[in-house]
Amino acid sequence: MLNIGILGFGTVGKATFEILQERIDVIEASVGDEIIVKKIFVRNKNKHNYDNIDANLFTDVISEVVEDDSVDIIIEATGDVGVVYEGIKVAIANGKHIITANKEMVSRHFEELNQLANKHDIQLKYEAAVGGAIPILCQIPKIRELNEIVEINGVLNGTCNFILSAMEKGMDYNKALLDAQQAGFAEADPTADVEAYDTVRKLRILATLAFGVKVAEDEITREGIINVSKKEIDTSKKNGMRIKLVAHAKKTKDGIEAFVKPTEVEINSVLGGLEDGENAVSVVCDNAGELVFKGKGAGGRPTAFSILSDFLAIACK
Amino acid sequence: MLNIGILGFGTVGKATFEILQERIDVIEASVGDEIIVKKIFVRNKNKHNYDNIDANLFTDVISEVVEDDSVDIIIEATGDVGVVYEGIKVAIANGKHIITANKEMVSRHFEELNQLANKHDIQLKYEAAVGGAIPILCQIPKIRELNEIVEINGVLNGTCNFILSAMEKGMDYNKALLDAQQAGFAEADPTADVEAYDTVRKLRILATLAFGVKVAEDEITREGIINVSKKEIDTSKKNGMRIKLVAHAKKTKDGIEAFVKPTEVEINSVLGGLEDGENAVSVVCDNAGELVFKGKGAGGRPTAFSILSDFLAIACK
Repeated sequence: MLNIGILGFGTVGKATFEILQERIDVIEASVGDEIIVKKIFVRNKNKHNYDNIDANLFTDVISEVVEDDSVDIIIEATGDVGVVYEGIKVAIANGKHIITANKEMVSRHFEELNQLANKHDIQLKYEAAVGGAIPILCQIPKIRELNEIVEINGVLNGTCNFILSAMEKGMDYNKALLDAQQAGFAEADPTADVEAYDTVRKLRILATLAFGVKVAEDEITREGIINVSKKEIDTSKKNGMRIKLVAHAKKTKDGIEAFVKPTEVEINSVLGGLEDGENAVSVVCDNAGELVFKGKGAGGRPTAFSILSDFLAIACK
Repeated sequence: MLNIGILGFGTVGKATFEILQERIDVIEASVGDEIIVKKIFVRNKNKHNYDNIDANLFTDVISEVVEDDSVDIIIEATGDVGVVYEGIKVAIANGKHIITANKEMVSRHFEELNQLANKHDIQLKYEAAVGGAIPILCQIPKIRELNEIVEINGVLNGTCNFILSAMEKGMDYNKALLDAQQAGFAEADPTADVEAYDTVRKLRILATLAFGVKVAEDEITREGIINVSKKEIDTSKKNGMRIKLVAHAKKTKDGIEAFVKPTEVEINSVLGGLEDGENAVSVVCDNAGELVFKGKGAGGRPTAFSILSDFLAIACK
């Protein structure tokens, strides 16, 4: 029997639970064991509509999940970097495998969490933290065994795609942001997205894995999209280009060059063709050449797909 | 110790050997064992320039490889479907794992070879047979555990890309084919590529894996690019579209609908942006949404990357 504890039951946590239930036969056959969701941590037990879910599964006391001796694997889908980060460390110390979609936590505490995971001989996986549904992080070690990775380019933020596309259609930045907020693409406080902090976190994780050296957030030059003018967008368009918030990292003789900034890309390139919630990552390799991966960068089920891919990678060992 | 036998030492076989030598330290560390290339089968021992390779490795007698008791894994890179196909069956019966880039052999004998592999409890892998460097076949079972695959669309033939691109620039079909032949993109007899047999074979493999039911070559409607006119290409271009040789398979209530034919795709889609040797596969899933994978569809080192990815998947178990 394999017992799961879930932290967070918003869009992503709920979608993960649902896919697990819907496909339990296939998943259990693949794992070769019974799989049980043992406990779900939520901040407010009364906020949730449990539908057909046993209300006893829910707790608002995180230690009831991360210190439960019967829980084998923690799935973290809160986005919190306070109490949940502390809870994750407790879970690791208690020998539980960790799957997280929390890019801010993983980016901020990458080395610490990975060292803790090694120390306690558990697996720490975070496919969903970068590029949503795209199976990119799982590919990086495989690519690195057979290649030197030369360069990485990605578009990793749907909110910025949405806003830049709206500006191409004639809106100014403020109207486009408002539209993005109304469409559910931007949060009330859009800073993390439009100021590129979100993309920096994702690049920090991706580049650190790809080049095998620490690429810290503050080593990545950051420029958001708030100063992109309609004029720049129009000029790009006339030249067959689009402006995208590009994450770039490259090996140079002086170390890793890394930036996130609004960048012109060709309209018929993969990055140039992205709309709204679509993300893509291009990995340039010395042997395989350029490999490009595209998919939905956010959303409940796409993100849950990556979480459960991590789950299968752990559980099928 | 893990002993490899290689069948074929053309562009792909040689590139596989070279990457293996260049990265032997990383690969052996990953596998946790010493890796030796024990024997290489070639049709004509005198045709090859061995450079720094021990001439005793080479043999023109296939049984010396596939019946060698010390060989654990066969890497097949000949493209032959006669003596090599027979040799592969002998190798399987002798308990050797098989890695092949041979799409014609895998397509033609898919069920037989997979059943033989099961019977003798060996692994049969053929990532390099579809989409060159693109890590697509390894993803399919993982995607299927967590999704129903709804639809697949791909561009899987570089020769047709090259010819259609040349026609967009104003050439007629015959001149474009000649150019493709001179550039090394098309063979002297281009039938398999331009008549879409090659793409049909790849789709047969991909669709059979994706839908979990046999999709035979003769169930795939086939139309090559030889009747595509300059006028059609020009009209498409005016409408922001390009004509590509698209491989398509979709689940319908009446079974699997599958075709390979010249198809209009949007210029700013991933398929529409492909040039020359680039391939791409789009997999539409019910949970993850659309996942798209792009990379080099042919060439020595890109293909060798997929072969060695299969090798690591077998050897690291």
